[in-house]
Amino acid sequence: MTGVSKISVANDRTLFTPGPLTTSQTVKQAMLRDLGSRDIEFIRTVHRIRQSLLTLAGVSQDGGYEAVLMQGSGTFGLESVIGSTVPPDGKMLVIINGAYGDRIASIARVLGIDTTTLEYAPDSLPIPSDVARVLAEDSAITNVAVVHCETTTGIINPIEEIGRVVEQHDRVYFVDSMSAFGAVRFDFAKCGIDFLASSANKCIEGVPGFSLVICRRDSLQATQGWARSVSLDLLAQWQGLEANGQFRFTPPTHVALALEQALSELQAEGGVEGRAARYRANYEALVTGMREIGFAEFLPRELQGTIITAFRYPNHPRFQFDDFYTRLNDKGFVIYPGKVSNIDCFRIGSIGRLFERDILALLGAIRATLTEMDMKLPFT
Amino acid sequence: MTGVSKISVANDRTLFTPGPLTTSQTVKQAMLRDLGSRDIEFIRTVHRIRQSLLTLAGVSQDGGYEAVLMQGSGTFGLESVIGSTVPPDGKMLVIINGAYGDRIASIARVLGIDTTTLEYAPDSLPIPSDVARVLAEDSAITNVAVVHCETTTGIINPIEEIGRVVEQHDRVYFVDSMSAFGAVRFDFAKCGIDFLASSANKCIEGVPGFSLVICRRDSLQATQGWARSVSLDLLAQWQGLEANGQFRFTPPTHVALALEQALSELQAEGGVEGRAARYRANYEALVTGMREIGFAEFLPRELQGTIITAFRYPNHPRFQFDDFYTRLNDKGFVIYPGKVSNIDCFRIGSIGRLFERDILALLGAIRATLTEMDMKLPFT
Repeated sequence: MTGVSKISVANDRTLFTPGPLTTSQTVKQAMLRDLGSRDIEFIRTVHRIRQSLLTLAGVSQDGGYEAVLMQGSGTFGLESVIGSTVPPDGKMLVIINGAYGDRIASIARVLGIDTTTLEYAPDSLPIPSDVARVLAEDSAITNVAVVHCETTTGIINPIEEIGRVVEQHDRVYFVDSMSAFGAVRFDFAKCGIDFLASSANKCIEGVPGFSLVICRRDSLQATQGWARSVSLDLLAQWQGLEANGQFRFTPPTHVALALEQALSELQAEGGVEGRAARYRANYEALVTGMREIGFAEFLPRELQGTIITAFRYPNHPRFQFDDFYTRLNDKGFVIYPGKVSNIDCFRIGSIGRLFERDILALLGAIRATLTEMDMKLPFT
Repeated sequence: MTGVSKISVANDRTLFTPGPLTTSQTVKQAMLRDLGSRDIEFIRTVHRIRQSLLTLAGVSQDGGYEAVLMQGSGTFGLESVIGSTVPPDGKMLVIINGAYGDRIASIARVLGIDTTTLEYAPDSLPIPSDVARVLAEDSAITNVAVVHCETTTGIINPIEEIGRVVEQHDRVYFVDSMSAFGAVRFDFAKCGIDFLASSANKCIEGVPGFSLVICRRDSLQATQGWARSVSLDLLAQWQGLEANGQFRFTPPTHVALALEQALSELQAEGGVEGRAARYRANYEALVTGMREIGFAEFLPRELQGTIITAFRYPNHPRFQFDDFYTRLNDKGFVIYPGKVSNIDCFRIGSIGRLFERDILALLGAIRATLTEMDMKLPFT
């Protein structure tokens, strides 16, 4: 009657990507159950997830914060915040130094929101005094958005310094912390964040299917009637969860079970500190090994976060990225393409259920691949 | 380092709900892998899913049809179709005989779409000649929407007869087949459907996390520039999948693996015919047993589909629904609440990985529960 089961394949590839990423077997095994979405056990799961997210952010309900889950990818969460928290006659300032900043501006424009941008090169940090000047000059701006870790390059933007400026000018502050939240330490309150969006499937190491929003309750409650969507209505989603612990629309229950398990494994690892330490060790091993081979990072080291690293194509006649990528893939290692502006780069992530041994294995595979490609090592 | 794994619990409750529903163990086990979303293996999985959906609908790419997956719940898919396929100056007619028809109209209104409705009582079928009259009188109407199986009651609406009228009047036809697709036979082309939305987690018996849209390619291609959202842009989603087989935004990869497995199990069961036969057997056993106990359905039998059935509260002083629900739940059986208009009802689904033996077990539990509640059986 039933089809043939696919048994978990031991030699599945290891993912050195910004997600979907490699998760623990225990996270995946948490999905082997069907819970009803109105079931008290599921309601408790969702409650625990929301509490864990607040703890992870270093804030609390008593302190005036709330955590909301939204079905879909991280982009769905971004669009939920953008579409729900900018007033009908509002204006959004988007600070941009990469593709994900661009995406926020694109979403705002498609939603018909008056949008202005402050743009920097992908290897430059946004300058808080620029933000101050723009806000002082344009009183129509109601909301300011910035990306925390710009996954285009892996640069970590100064969300606290920008947040101070936004707070001084009394605007609503939105941080897209998609690839940073859970493994980059910051002080939520000191940053003056009103809304932060992330994903179940980045540093938390759950599986994809939920985005998550952590926000100030009063900022959320101020948005009544502003949502430009039913599915992505952030306030209604929160009100639904608050009313009876249930989602308005069918949640991916299995993804939620995996998220709860992932959050408990994150806690067991020592929370943000513990996870950041592992990712840093991964990153250090990666950069050391890649430099030994002859690769160079796109960013200067002092701007580089430990989440994902962009490397420039080597200036070598035999290097063809597609060939390099495919050969690595065939060996069981998945890296990530990624042009930055006009500069040819590829990216390697340090996140997911990866340890230094996985990085060392990747480096070995990269060496073998380049040798196959008849490139003498090191390049330089 | 890692937390404690949750082992699959053999005595998880059985779900007699319209989703999330009980799925096979093999469908859940398909999720025990992490695939990269740009991985050729994942791209092939998505390709096979899209082909299987067309086959299930009885249409083909050669015949001019396309299948698109959209992240999120079924409602996200509905909003994607509504927001992407009504022209900027368009007008939508929504035919309503239950809560899900109401929801379509609500979504359209929040999106700022000019919306008109044709409303019927929840125990009445929409009348095609009414639709013809409305369309003849209002040339501004560009799109017509109707729910296939209205999950409020389980009524099956005449989508073919309505479709013929919509086609005669040359309007775009949208069918919400959320809880029917995969287990209710209909002729896609004869119905003249332009867009149909359903879910991975209804009659296909996958896990929640994807909605699915099956549509005429020319109708989809005509919508360039109309989308009111980035995340839920149906045309852009299709174009992304066509360009390189990849999603624009991180897909729930594990949910996709479960969906592929579910589709193969559906095929192994004999496709729509085979699954419809099992659901019909479930329904027949349910109604027979419930009538013997003394319950009555909300709908007259000739209007009732076999997906989900609404039963009236018995006219008995000792019947308290919350108590009934909780006692059943404690015994491991999850049913579904559901008021219809002003009439107190609850609902029992026949769908999911349920067989006649599960229905008989539920009937036994219902009898035991009512006896505990000191209600003499049968009522009548």
